[in-house]
Amino acid sequence: MKARIHITLKNGVLDPQGKAIQQALAGLAFDGVEDVRQGKFIEIELTESDADTARVQVSDMCEKLLANTVIENYDIEIVA
Amino acid sequence: MKARIHITLKNGVLDPQGKAIQQALAGLAFDGVEDVRQGKFIEIELTESDADTARVQVSDMCEKLLANTVIENYDIEIVA
Repeated sequence: MKARIHITLKNGVLDPQGKAIQQALAGLAFDGVEDVRQGKFIEIELTESDADTARVQVSDMCEKLLANTVIENYDIEIVA
Repeated sequence: MKARIHITLKNGVLDPQGKAIQQALAGLAFDGVEDVRQGKFIEIELTESDADTARVQVSDMCEKLLANTVIENYDIEIVA
């Protein structure tokens, strides 16, 4: 199974990297950009073949290592 | 409109960050992890209200700034 994980900053947490991208886009004359937020995207290839077990396992990985749950949200998608 | 962009390393391009995550997961006794790839996830809020125009605009942003198209692929999803 493959797990696709999105890790994004929680609302209200300052995102300097997103702001830097926004300013760079403005500098390249891209108008109409209201907001930019940058997050992480992690793809994990698992040997586990049961989707529910895989989800629990990946959720545990997020809590323990991948995400800083004080300031970040994570979203897990299990694909076959 | 909102654009969700995934920027991932092309197949065959070494991903040291992914390997570091994989080793850290192994160190935390998570078995069954075959491969880890880390990419970027960018959300852009646009004033543009036409989906096709927004896609062209974001594609242009990826080519010029957001992705290094020599080693990275990008995937754009436009959401209302």
